[in-house]
Amino acid sequence: MRTIDVSLAERSYPILIGPGLIDGTEALTRLAGGRQVAIVTDDQVGPLYRDRLRAGLGAAPAAVVDVTLPAGEANKTWDSLNRVFDALLRARFDRGCLVIALGGGVVGDMAGFAAAVYQRGVDFVQVPTTLLAQVDSSVGGKTAINHPEGKNMIGAFHQPRLVIADTDTLRTLPPRELSAGLAEVIKHGAIADPAYLDAIERDMAALRACEPQALARAIARSCEIKADVVARDEREGGLRAILNFGHTFGHAIEAGTGYGNWLHGEAVGAGMVQAADLSCRLGNLAREQVTRLTAIIAAAGLPVRAPAWPYERWIELMSVDKKAEQGAPRFVVLEAIGRAALRKVPEAALRQALAA
Amino acid sequence: MRTIDVSLAERSYPILIGPGLIDGTEALTRLAGGRQVAIVTDDQVGPLYRDRLRAGLGAAPAAVVDVTLPAGEANKTWDSLNRVFDALLRARFDRGCLVIALGGGVVGDMAGFAAAVYQRGVDFVQVPTTLLAQVDSSVGGKTAINHPEGKNMIGAFHQPRLVIADTDTLRTLPPRELSAGLAEVIKHGAIADPAYLDAIERDMAALRACEPQALARAIARSCEIKADVVARDEREGGLRAILNFGHTFGHAIEAGTGYGNWLHGEAVGAGMVQAADLSCRLGNLAREQVTRLTAIIAAAGLPVRAPAWPYERWIELMSVDKKAEQGAPRFVVLEAIGRAALRKVPEAALRQALAA
Repeated sequence: MRTIDVSLAERSYPILIGPGLIDGTEALTRLAGGRQVAIVTDDQVGPLYRDRLRAGLGAAPAAVVDVTLPAGEANKTWDSLNRVFDALLRARFDRGCLVIALGGGVVGDMAGFAAAVYQRGVDFVQVPTTLLAQVDSSVGGKTAINHPEGKNMIGAFHQPRLVIADTDTLRTLPPRELSAGLAEVIKHGAIADPAYLDAIERDMAALRACEPQALARAIARSCEIKADVVARDEREGGLRAILNFGHTFGHAIEAGTGYGNWLHGEAVGAGMVQAADLSCRLGNLAREQVTRLTAIIAAAGLPVRAPAWPYERWIELMSVDKKAEQGAPRFVVLEAIGRAALRKVPEAALRQALAA
Repeated sequence: MRTIDVSLAERSYPILIGPGLIDGTEALTRLAGGRQVAIVTDDQVGPLYRDRLRAGLGAAPAAVVDVTLPAGEANKTWDSLNRVFDALLRARFDRGCLVIALGGGVVGDMAGFAAAVYQRGVDFVQVPTTLLAQVDSSVGGKTAINHPEGKNMIGAFHQPRLVIADTDTLRTLPPRELSAGLAEVIKHGAIADPAYLDAIERDMAALRACEPQALARAIARSCEIKADVVARDEREGGLRAILNFGHTFGHAIEAGTGYGNWLHGEAVGAGMVQAADLSCRLGNLAREQVTRLTAIIAAAGLPVRAPAWPYERWIELMSVDKKAEQGAPRFVVLEAIGRAALRKVPEAALRQALAA
């Protein structure tokens, strides 16, 4: 078992990474001891892992309530969220309760946001079962639901007390979802660590074949990189924006195609190609690195071409992005492989990149 | 103009108290400068003060959007909250925007919670126009909406950047609402400052007649007391619970009679009489102090008798209270006038107090 510590002063917490952890860890049993516990999952992950997680808790909790949400990004809504509140209130859960999120990023976002605002905030544990959630959503404390006008528009920063990443759960993941998770893995290499990007490039076949050691290495390194950025900028004041490499385009793709049609990681894959191309047009990144990054993204089984929309459509879709400042979108660009920065981009370069 | 500073490290903020402040202050103009600003109010307060507040901002903001919510506790719902999100998103407000709450506690709670979760948190200013909001809701950063199963069940701690308490706005307040505000004023004296309770007792006629100096003194002292408690316990870990004196009973009265039938302050008035009686039965408070406190509450124009419900009904209504721990309610009791503490209460004493 590997342990990565996310250092955020009094909100610090560990990420445990390894096989079989869903069946029980001392850390979770200790945290759940004597408390009212809610296991929030969805109708795809629940049947696979809920009973094993529940069995691992044994007699530790004072009470356990199950909440099963409909799966998928399209259900990341207030109505779904309210099911969690209904269940907690019906069971008379007080503010000393513990919410466990069992599932992918959607479940983590929703259960985390529910924990952030239930009685103005209760403790929360993430048990991510997708690669995307293990390498991305489990670090940083971002929680949210969608609004018809934009993704993740309503949310909170709320750090978990513990994250348990069981690498065995990735074996039941559809290949398309595994690829979507690899988008964030590639991103971490691209923005912060050239040697890590080299390793990802080298290990790609092993990663896609769910080779446990390769996965555990990647999850641990990705969590370290993200944890390091988040520790230096918990509330997303500046530096943390680099984690959004590929995301301004990616969010626009998700919004413009209707949430749930492209997976988040797929949209980020194509978005990173656009962002790399934009970086090159701004003179920051060599064209051969754009080509190489595009090849790595393609090798991960991800789309590398964004939808062919007119410039005005892109602008419309991007203008409510949270990184925008009063309507003028900024973009995370690569200065080089392993070094990213947030830049305002001249319209001409943006037009070229979007037309590419 | 009086200024009370609420000290919360990097989230510290000033409360400005005085006549005519709604027409403009340098502090608000500076804060709104160059930003997207939303003025959130309700359909009762808006017609009285919105245009004056807007005029006071002058040309400082980059944009101003008005959001008018239906007035009243019964509308402290997700649906109302969503009107704020709809308006902010339609106007393309980014995370650098500023939300101003203009109105009573309901508007402050809703606009504050909207600011807490819009794009995971934006800045927020309170312009409270009721006595209750000026002495209570404007300090402490508590924001929330109601759930059918309980009051303030969904919310966040989110500190304002600035609070502007214009004492002139209290002149348009219905007498019943002024009395409701006095409940919290009396509470602050009862839990923290015997000399302040003496002053309230002495000034009661002047307070009810809206005498400006008496009001300004009370608002300032109440804000000081609450700010001092909050500064020592921002997230309501322990000490802050004493601010809930009278509130466990009061919330039960509000819930059991249907939100909006009793004003919050009225329920707290009757609830404080119950809590004082309970304190006496536990041997902590002299009976003559219960009588005196009851007389002060009555002199403020507040009810002193709670509904005559069976014990089981009270327990049911109180068991989802946020101060409850796994079903066993605790109560804030007075050890003496000016000194409060949170105590688990034996069932026998509770039965007697509820039957009294």
